[in-house]
Amino acid sequence: MKIVLNPPENEWELLFRRSEMEKAWIEEKVRNILTRVRSEGDNALFEFSEKYDGVRPENLKVSIEEISESAKLVPQELKDAISVAKENIEKFHSAQLFEEPVTETSAGVKCWRKNVAIGRVGIYVPGGSAPLFSTVLMLAVPAKIAGCQEIIMCTPPNSEGKVNPLMLYTAFITGVTSVYRCGGAQAIAAMAFGTESIPGVDKIFGPGNQYVTKAKEMVQVYGVPVDMPAGPSELLIIADETGDPEFIAADLLSQAEHGIDSQVFLLTNSEAMTGRVRDQVNKQVQQLPRKDIALKALEHSALVWLSSISECIRFSNLYAPEHLIIATSDPESVAAEVVNAGSVFLGNYSCESAGDYATGTNHTLPTSGFARNFSGVSVESFMKKISFQEVTAEGIKNIGPVVELMAEAEMLAGHKNGVSVRLNRLKNV
Amino acid sequence: MKIVLNPPENEWELLFRRSEMEKAWIEEKVRNILTRVRSEGDNALFEFSEKYDGVRPENLKVSIEEISESAKLVPQELKDAISVAKENIEKFHSAQLFEEPVTETSAGVKCWRKNVAIGRVGIYVPGGSAPLFSTVLMLAVPAKIAGCQEIIMCTPPNSEGKVNPLMLYTAFITGVTSVYRCGGAQAIAAMAFGTESIPGVDKIFGPGNQYVTKAKEMVQVYGVPVDMPAGPSELLIIADETGDPEFIAADLLSQAEHGIDSQVFLLTNSEAMTGRVRDQVNKQVQQLPRKDIALKALEHSALVWLSSISECIRFSNLYAPEHLIIATSDPESVAAEVVNAGSVFLGNYSCESAGDYATGTNHTLPTSGFARNFSGVSVESFMKKISFQEVTAEGIKNIGPVVELMAEAEMLAGHKNGVSVRLNRLKNV
Repeated sequence: MKIVLNPPENEWELLFRRSEMEKAWIEEKVRNILTRVRSEGDNALFEFSEKYDGVRPENLKVSIEEISESAKLVPQELKDAISVAKENIEKFHSAQLFEEPVTETSAGVKCWRKNVAIGRVGIYVPGGSAPLFSTVLMLAVPAKIAGCQEIIMCTPPNSEGKVNPLMLYTAFITGVTSVYRCGGAQAIAAMAFGTESIPGVDKIFGPGNQYVTKAKEMVQVYGVPVDMPAGPSELLIIADETGDPEFIAADLLSQAEHGIDSQVFLLTNSEAMTGRVRDQVNKQVQQLPRKDIALKALEHSALVWLSSISECIRFSNLYAPEHLIIATSDPESVAAEVVNAGSVFLGNYSCESAGDYATGTNHTLPTSGFARNFSGVSVESFMKKISFQEVTAEGIKNIGPVVELMAEAEMLAGHKNGVSVRLNRLKNV
Repeated sequence: MKIVLNPPENEWELLFRRSEMEKAWIEEKVRNILTRVRSEGDNALFEFSEKYDGVRPENLKVSIEEISESAKLVPQELKDAISVAKENIEKFHSAQLFEEPVTETSAGVKCWRKNVAIGRVGIYVPGGSAPLFSTVLMLAVPAKIAGCQEIIMCTPPNSEGKVNPLMLYTAFITGVTSVYRCGGAQAIAAMAFGTESIPGVDKIFGPGNQYVTKAKEMVQVYGVPVDMPAGPSELLIIADETGDPEFIAADLLSQAEHGIDSQVFLLTNSEAMTGRVRDQVNKQVQQLPRKDIALKALEHSALVWLSSISECIRFSNLYAPEHLIIATSDPESVAAEVVNAGSVFLGNYSCESAGDYATGTNHTLPTSGFARNFSGVSVESFMKKISFQEVTAEGIKNIGPVVELMAEAEMLAGHKNGVSVRLNRLKNV
């Protein structure tokens, strides 16, 4: 892992260049998948499943029996762990619901907003080598708290056409309405357009590979919104000499193992720290089953010495990391300066992987610098807010003349007239 | 305006088909504009201005002098009106700021979120025949309340290369940082990519014609988010026999005058009401300067009699109107059933145009059925929320084993290790 000493600011951008994996042919391939699913429905899904998952499942919808059977296959110890994580996620996300007050903006003019859940949401959970049941928690729990009537979930089948019991168990306890064995860009297409088996949804959530990400980007043009743009995972750590090299190295590696395109940084005002962390990284990486992936990720990562913690904060705010660990003697004062980050971890015992599973915060976070303008997934992501206003006769007398003048200045006589007919009526009574 | 009596539900969709104005060549044209602005900067902007606005402005940035001069050109009466509207918008939007509590999800695990303004936002305000200064209010006021450091505004120059004083005055009093005479898709491109004169922004807001809308859709692929997808304006009115035909007709026309692609509906359980409103529409439309536009819009609009107010609500929720007026004897009970709408107006004196200018709610609202899954513009639109967590030694002892089990089940040994190194350390002390 490379060490960079006091790079001048005009070289920062080079350092934090993110990997760009996208190739033009991905768009063509995904466009074909979208078009075929849109016109051929389930048939196209079966065909793509055979092609990409190597299996043609008997049916797409996972049966109630299969879901209830799943509970028997999950060890009690793991069930208990999931239960703790779920409760913490529930506690944190419940606090996000907020009834705004009714505001009387002028006498006789009351305005308010109402939170209303999005009706039917779709969550995508990648398959592959590991069952990412934590993603089910992070998406289904806030959807449920928001009050979504239907939460449908798509995840690719394994080679026997089955869905991992751990995924089904988590879907069951979080209130997912139905689960479909369907993965990749075709699953996104199915949730966007609807097929005979899979209902079209009002919004799509969840991580995925390049095809899934591209499909989520492309279905927006058809009017289906998604949670946020997705990119490789990232971690940036700001540490002074009170940081713990062993902890820091473990945290860097925990993100590096995600994928070869992951990116991790240590920023520190202590030159000695860079060497200590490098030694720990070199030692710990040897123990990791996903060592090869981590080592690839470390190639475009760095341990950076900067002249001060203020410089570290400035670098971090420019980079806008998905995850930010602050391992300094006074993490609160650093945290106060953070303006661009997805999720922030304060102090030596706040490891990033704790937030991935169990602190209660959401792990679906903005990457690729989108922390500048996007929030992570929250209960609000599953709701919309409707504005209401009630104007009484007194109210229209108060603000009506204002509306008339402004509408006239915008040359919208019809808008003005909406008020005028009412004011005239009130003159006559 | 056509009257439709008790249409069966399977014919509703035909009724509420929105106009689709988009043509394939728009995308090509806009793509060319984006590419050229991205590579040629200001030069391309000047060229497009000459081509589309018929004027080559001396410089893009409106000078401080021009802005401060503008105040002298706005009549005091109109200034006072704008001031009332601004205050109401400020009151309503200020109530949207909410400090979430810190949640202790497990002992020693504290989680919270912080609202942080998006740094630099761009607002687009269309030009054309009328100076839409109300749009400046609706975008700049919440941006200012959110705390955005820079609010830049683009609007097309008139034939003398000037910006309407009313626009400049409103920009000035709302705290817009800089104004550029630049319109159309090229303005969106400039704010997305940045040019020599116009800085690139973190998010783009504001309405516009088909080119602007397409450009906003397309710059998202380059990583620049926008407020929401845009479409023609819409109004749906639910009325029983207590509704006022004169008021209802005026409101329908106030939306119909927006554009030939606007769409308006009256839904009523009173058959007699449809005829009364039609007569009023026919009478009032004759007085409108924008009569021809309104008449075109009325061609794909309708006065619909349904068997009950419940049916009206069901129709409305399926249509998901941008604006919804409830003119019934008990508007609150109808409002309680609304799940899909942008902004709702209760009672006979709550005319839609009051909300366009002065009730205090935002008039930048989801159209084209996007009220199913999008909110109108609010203070939140100009902010992101950052998650924070602080896990103490006690906290990691509490949730650490949960994280270890879950990470192991997801086959992410590095994630597990982030916790294990800490738990091991705590065993040894």
